[in-house]
Amino acid sequence: MIARMTKLFVRTLRESPADAEFPSHKLLVRAGYIRRAAPGIYTWLPLGIAVLAKIERIVREEMDAIGGQEVRFPALLPREPYEATNRWTEYGDNLFRLKDRKGADMLLGPTHEEMFTLLVKDLCSSYKDLPLNLYQIQTKYRDEARPRAGVIRGREFVMKDAYTFDIDRAGLERAYQQMRDAYCRIFDRLGFHYVIVKADAGAMGGSASEEFQAVSPNGEDTFVYSDGGYAANVEAVVTPAPAAQAWDDAPAAHVEDTPDVPTIDSLVAMCEERFPRSDGRAWTGADTLKNVVVMIKNLDGTRTPLVIGLPGDRQVDDKRLEVAVAPGEPDAFTEDDFAAYPQLARGYIGPMKDGAQFLGEDAPAGVRYLLDPRVAPGTTWVSGANEDGHHCLDLVAGRDFTADGTIDVAEVREGDPAPDGSGPLKLARGIEIGHIFQLGYKYAEALGLKVLDPNGKLVTAIMGSYGLGVTRALAAIAEDTYDERGLCWPRQVAPYDVMVVATGKDAAVFEAAQQLCQGLDDAGVAVLYDDRKASPGVKFADAELLGMPTIVVVGRGLAQGVVEIRDRKSGTAREVPVDEALAQVLAEVER
Amino acid sequence: MIARMTKLFVRTLRESPADAEFPSHKLLVRAGYIRRAAPGIYTWLPLGIAVLAKIERIVREEMDAIGGQEVRFPALLPREPYEATNRWTEYGDNLFRLKDRKGADMLLGPTHEEMFTLLVKDLCSSYKDLPLNLYQIQTKYRDEARPRAGVIRGREFVMKDAYTFDIDRAGLERAYQQMRDAYCRIFDRLGFHYVIVKADAGAMGGSASEEFQAVSPNGEDTFVYSDGGYAANVEAVVTPAPAAQAWDDAPAAHVEDTPDVPTIDSLVAMCEERFPRSDGRAWTGADTLKNVVVMIKNLDGTRTPLVIGLPGDRQVDDKRLEVAVAPGEPDAFTEDDFAAYPQLARGYIGPMKDGAQFLGEDAPAGVRYLLDPRVAPGTTWVSGANEDGHHCLDLVAGRDFTADGTIDVAEVREGDPAPDGSGPLKLARGIEIGHIFQLGYKYAEALGLKVLDPNGKLVTAIMGSYGLGVTRALAAIAEDTYDERGLCWPRQVAPYDVMVVATGKDAAVFEAAQQLCQGLDDAGVAVLYDDRKASPGVKFADAELLGMPTIVVVGRGLAQGVVEIRDRKSGTAREVPVDEALAQVLAEVER
Repeated sequence: MIARMTKLFVRTLRESPADAEFPSHKLLVRAGYIRRAAPGIYTWLPLGIAVLAKIERIVREEMDAIGGQEVRFPALLPREPYEATNRWTEYGDNLFRLKDRKGADMLLGPTHEEMFTLLVKDLCSSYKDLPLNLYQIQTKYRDEARPRAGVIRGREFVMKDAYTFDIDRAGLERAYQQMRDAYCRIFDRLGFHYVIVKADAGAMGGSASEEFQAVSPNGEDTFVYSDGGYAANVEAVVTPAPAAQAWDDAPAAHVEDTPDVPTIDSLVAMCEERFPRSDGRAWTGADTLKNVVVMIKNLDGTRTPLVIGLPGDRQVDDKRLEVAVAPGEPDAFTEDDFAAYPQLARGYIGPMKDGAQFLGEDAPAGVRYLLDPRVAPGTTWVSGANEDGHHCLDLVAGRDFTADGTIDVAEVREGDPAPDGSGPLKLARGIEIGHIFQLGYKYAEALGLKVLDPNGKLVTAIMGSYGLGVTRALAAIAEDTYDERGLCWPRQVAPYDVMVVATGKDAAVFEAAQQLCQGLDDAGVAVLYDDRKASPGVKFADAELLGMPTIVVVGRGLAQGVVEIRDRKSGTAREVPVDEALAQVLAEVER
Repeated sequence: MIARMTKLFVRTLRESPADAEFPSHKLLVRAGYIRRAAPGIYTWLPLGIAVLAKIERIVREEMDAIGGQEVRFPALLPREPYEATNRWTEYGDNLFRLKDRKGADMLLGPTHEEMFTLLVKDLCSSYKDLPLNLYQIQTKYRDEARPRAGVIRGREFVMKDAYTFDIDRAGLERAYQQMRDAYCRIFDRLGFHYVIVKADAGAMGGSASEEFQAVSPNGEDTFVYSDGGYAANVEAVVTPAPAAQAWDDAPAAHVEDTPDVPTIDSLVAMCEERFPRSDGRAWTGADTLKNVVVMIKNLDGTRTPLVIGLPGDRQVDDKRLEVAVAPGEPDAFTEDDFAAYPQLARGYIGPMKDGAQFLGEDAPAGVRYLLDPRVAPGTTWVSGANEDGHHCLDLVAGRDFTADGTIDVAEVREGDPAPDGSGPLKLARGIEIGHIFQLGYKYAEALGLKVLDPNGKLVTAIMGSYGLGVTRALAAIAEDTYDERGLCWPRQVAPYDVMVVATGKDAAVFEAAQQLCQGLDDAGVAVLYDDRKASPGVKFADAELLGMPTIVVVGRGLAQGVVEIRDRKSGTAREVPVDEALAQVLAEVER
């Protein structure tokens, strides 16, 4: 069936939606692939449906090829399973909750670990039933605080989620590797640039975990990599702790009167002037110990103060902090909070006061204190003396102060050493399109999924969980392949292989175009025919905006017996004799 | 890829679920096609997914063939469009409502008229954009008071809903007819028995409307048909009103002392004994006017009493009543209600008291009174005299009493005349699997969908709406085709064409079975291989329960060089030489 622009339900728009920042978002709306229905909630139009169907087919093929079996869970779920794993609460405001007519608590599934675990518990009882690899392609819901970028971070979206069940860790590792390979094949086939990065398992509660990031300067995730092959998202970067140093020869700590040094820079300048170092090394922000106060919002609604000590030349990274304090949530330390904790002398907070430990749950301040791993035993610091206009110098970690623990939430910087010693880190941005986890026993234990092993002993099954954003992948492909003229689909996901544009008013042109379309259609090529009565300029602009990989222009050249074949991606165009057009386009499509 | 029972995620069950009444529900659960996740909410297992995919493909093909274009709306929707059409309220408890994190009201879409109307309003502006036929295959939600019969009446279910947009009524009628034909092709291809019946448009607010009913003795819908070709669901049957009769010669109404006649039967017997008719006709229940009191629950939560007068030999039909009083809801008239309305003398309610009209909004009783169409002017009745132990005889409608209107809610009975004069009605039961409506202007007007006509004048578009229950169709097929041994799929929707069962322990058997499977797989036939080490009895029972159309048994016969081909539906079996097995099975599949 030849699709015709005069019939196709698509209206291209000149203006981008006001709320769109990402190029893919603007273009998908302007080209009539999606339309906003509510904040973070989109309607898929025919062209969008066509791309989605192609992505889904590729995902299904690769899941089936590794023995995945498709199931489909409801999106509307009962509360109980999520209560059992505490995620009913832990998901916080991100979960859409509702009550049915009988008052029963229900939710819209953000992910289905609980349901898959219970299904397998329900139907499997023996090691003979394992290994098992189940997946679904299904609509999920998350009430994002900041839905953005069109379908990249929506509140209703399509995911492929898969779960594996094995009898032992070796089985899980095999399943994980098999899934990882399948993901590589899927993303290779989808035709966009991606990297695999180590990920923090975060709220999913697993151990080994990797993310597939579509490389994009607009991506909201930052990841790091080294030339030596290390790659991780910033949340997962582990700062190597320096070795402990002896402090036998270190001078004693001393408090100094330090007026007018409100910033790290002014503190460093003051030290350089008044306390030049004997070995001549210049003072830097990295010699100062900055103590940042935050509030942690607990699940029960209460708030707990936390002081984070880190080198003065680094900021706390919000995302790393979020992961570190989960399931609690970071919250600003307000004026009211300072009033409530007068022991915290703003601008002069430090670990020691009056020659003794000051910060810490069991210390005089009575506030939890956690240190960056760089503040290793034996390292020397300048820090606040907990008194306006005073700092403490020659503070030695381990000798003069300790903490309630470490916290690795300082920003990761270009040039920082990779944790595995593979060289300095570089920063890049990406869109997370896949996430694979070795979940381990968390859900199987919480929900009691046990099977009989070959010796007749009940053992807990071990699980993996594997997500792939289907609607998000579509946007990531658009984001990776668009150019200034519009969308530019890789052939394997394009809604149509070829767009035939007839220009002018000459009946012979429309006849030749129609004939070419028919030939392509007969050959099984998906073709979109622009049969509209519109100016060539409008039609060319639309063809480039819509982004089919091959554009054939049947127009003025026809009088000279030629048509033009354009490659949307490279922009190259060539004229071919009209009677060779079909064969040439077919060759292009099959290339 | 050959599917193997040792790997397939299916566990057959001996016991039916406790809550299952329908054979299809029991069998779909026992055979591992679906699994309950919550009341009225089901998980689809691999076999169920396979059938669903086949049904969806058939639906898509037929929708595309009539120029339907696929889109997909969200299930999670904003309140506003449904507020504009008043369905936010009218849907009552059937609507799943929720609030997002910002407190915005949202709902889970039970049907998408509003959203489609707004989308077309958003993107279309001219008659040139019409006609338009859009459809989606999508998950819908209704918080049913009584979810039942598995996926036949679930709270989360898959529907194909289509909407047509035309410039005038002639266009709508063409679109409706085209869709009706496509539905016939779909249901013909799905291979089950159905009838098309006139339907009441009910809450959808349309005019012409028909239902596709899968004929089933277990169906929850009752429909009627005549040999002359009339067919309608009971809600849509219009009772022909008898012609008005003159009452010039009728005797005057008179109240009689009638103790001890608490029932219609005893009232009839008393009349027969004490007031034999001059023309010798025997008294029947149809001569008595029964007055039934109900409460109507209004949308604002208030309750209004209603008295329904109908022939004493008929009951009020609950479904017809529901439709007649919508968007209000019928509610029982309780003891408390009788106490609150002492003017209603239980058992002796009648239209007249003390020689004057008694029932009616503006009459002494002050209660709304509606009459069955059979109570036509000039008809004569016996009814209560609104006083214990008293009845009124020779009451003539129109002369002695009137009402606030008519209400056509009496039960429809086998033998009643068809409204179109096509003969006596017969009753049957069905499962509603499709519903097509000529919506008209209701939604387009409420939401302001106007386009420019050829004269440059803005006109309101006219719409049709067409539903098809995809998950329900699956259950209806199962319900129509099952037998006492299990499911029995028509080939066009069966998860696998052939099930190969290897029995015994002989390695040669498994080898031959494997070879046959490979041959079938190579030929593109979907094959399920029962390669389990289980008894032949278990394997045969499972094969029949699962319901693939062709079963091939490779077992003891192999020693004599034969295998058995069984036809699941007819139960016939024949032995064929093993080296002809592949060709014979292929012939069976392609037949």
